[in-house]
Amino acid sequence: DDKGELITRIKAVEACLATTSDVPCNIKFVIEGEEETGSAHIEEYLKKYKKKFSNDGVIWEFGYVDAKNRPIIGLGMKGLLFVELSVKESIRDAHSSLAVLIKNPAWRLIETVKTLRDSDGKILIKDWYKEVLPFSKKDLELIEKEPFDQNVFKKEFGIQSFVGNKKNLDAKKALVGDATCNIAGFVSGYTGDGAKTVLPGEALVKIDFRLIPKMDPKKQVIRLKKHLKSHGFNDVKIKIFHGEAAARTDSSHPFVSQVKNAADKAFGKSILNVSNAGTGPMYPFVDILKSPCISIGSTYMFSRIHSPNEFARVDLLNKTTKCICLIMENFGKN
Amino acid sequence: DDKGELITRIKAVEACLATTSDVPCNIKFVIEGEEETGSAHIEEYLKKYKKKFSNDGVIWEFGYVDAKNRPIIGLGMKGLLFVELSVKESIRDAHSSLAVLIKNPAWRLIETVKTLRDSDGKILIKDWYKEVLPFSKKDLELIEKEPFDQNVFKKEFGIQSFVGNKKNLDAKKALVGDATCNIAGFVSGYTGDGAKTVLPGEALVKIDFRLIPKMDPKKQVIRLKKHLKSHGFNDVKIKIFHGEAAARTDSSHPFVSQVKNAADKAFGKSILNVSNAGTGPMYPFVDILKSPCISIGSTYMFSRIHSPNEFARVDLLNKTTKCICLIMENFGKN
Repeated sequence: DDKGELITRIKAVEACLATTSDVPCNIKFVIEGEEETGSAHIEEYLKKYKKKFSNDGVIWEFGYVDAKNRPIIGLGMKGLLFVELSVKESIRDAHSSLAVLIKNPAWRLIETVKTLRDSDGKILIKDWYKEVLPFSKKDLELIEKEPFDQNVFKKEFGIQSFVGNKKNLDAKKALVGDATCNIAGFVSGYTGDGAKTVLPGEALVKIDFRLIPKMDPKKQVIRLKKHLKSHGFNDVKIKIFHGEAAARTDSSHPFVSQVKNAADKAFGKSILNVSNAGTGPMYPFVDILKSPCISIGSTYMFSRIHSPNEFARVDLLNKTTKCICLIMENFGKN
Repeated sequence: DDKGELITRIKAVEACLATTSDVPCNIKFVIEGEEETGSAHIEEYLKKYKKKFSNDGVIWEFGYVDAKNRPIIGLGMKGLLFVELSVKESIRDAHSSLAVLIKNPAWRLIETVKTLRDSDGKILIKDWYKEVLPFSKKDLELIEKEPFDQNVFKKEFGIQSFVGNKKNLDAKKALVGDATCNIAGFVSGYTGDGAKTVLPGEALVKIDFRLIPKMDPKKQVIRLKKHLKSHGFNDVKIKIFHGEAAARTDSSHPFVSQVKNAADKAFGKSILNVSNAGTGPMYPFVDILKSPCISIGSTYMFSRIHSPNEFARVDLLNKTTKCICLIMENFGKN
């Protein structure tokens, strides 16, 4: 995804070439198409071509614009661990009259996942939060400054209250810094219309864990496996789809103010965001290339991403393109 | 289903007509095609044509033959209550990064269903078992006599142990007399291959409750609704698909020994079963027509009913047809 942002980067370069026959600074593009499936190869690739991709600052493939048309400049991305848990009880589906004797894998899987988190969203896996650091004073200041209209948000999704009944500042802190354990999919038995008295042979749940800085996906997998074992769920199969660590760029890095200045000019006003709630493979750029990584983009925050009728706004595509031009211009001068 | 049994009834009548140009007793057929969706109209129909269908004994549309080729003569059927519970949290699916704030309906539904039964299969809804009577001495004797090879059963389904770790006699008692709460289907979010980071807007579970004698489906629905309310699940929607009461014919009824004699002749040996584990609309026949209802049939017990590669055995179809002829003959003499 994020094709909109990619276009603004390309159009900005095209605009420079068209008007000055050159670009104001060296530009390198990294375009990969695996973000939605975990960017499994980007780390290996960046390691291999480390020198080729050396740089002084990365403009990230991502970026939100809020309901008041202010771009949210992202300084970080969360990590992700995507797993599938499954239980196979019998070799085939059975008539549900046999539920008196044959165990139902859906019940078993429900028992399993119920142990993973409490209803307020706290993950109950041992040592899950062990390495996590609290927000710095500076991060907290930025979070407090961030605008967030909880009523607009709730109205957009048609919801009454937030997880754990969070409000205002706590909701903002959660978006920046909370880890999650989310059921992305659960399926077992007959899922069509009406009734069918079936005793399913298998049940399957897909879970995505959002990770925050200092959480190592490899370590978290081990902790999840230990959790299942220590709770007696030896019959639950686990399949790991991908793991990605979180990354953040320090808000005091000079590149941050350069990007902010350009965004303020192009959009009128912009907002610094310590970390987006979503995930991208920012970690290898920050870790391997040692680059500041900053998102600035054109995606309207209620554009229904990942759901039916997703859309892009042309006005925001234009403004983001202008902003990228300004960033390149400033960058060339410094 | 049960097309195999239906054919044996028709073929038996054909055989009588072909050899004697008549049938040895009055025969009435009730053929309906709604059994798999709860036989919603049979009760109304039998009430309307009560006189037309008056009879001295009903041969039921159903019947098992065990692994040793012994027909199991069924004197009862369990009832069924099929419901759908659903939770809609937000008006559309969202990107799962928002799971820090937007509640996931799958978690909510899991919380809900977890309160319905314990891991040994006992239903935790208040007063669910209130009207249920214990087995009579006679019923217990019949249950003890019934052959049941738990190892063959386990091998057939590839399972290690039974619900509640039941063994032998307890497993047999469960097949005859246990109520169940079974997840026939559970679905939420992305259920395809691989990973998709989605926060589903809805979650849905289909549950079939097998009912035992004295459980009134209408009363049980009220109890289920009360359960949801008293546990704070006012956001959980409930849809009732159908309810059917259990029915049993007393094993001391003279019609029982008539059928058993015929089955012993046709198959060599037969077994009396207090109640099948499955459901059929036997209740209105026993309740409205006041008839003894007895199953005798041709379905091999491991014929994979309701699952892929279901099959019927020709030898059992022939024997059952012969058995029906003998029942008609005996019935005409008495």
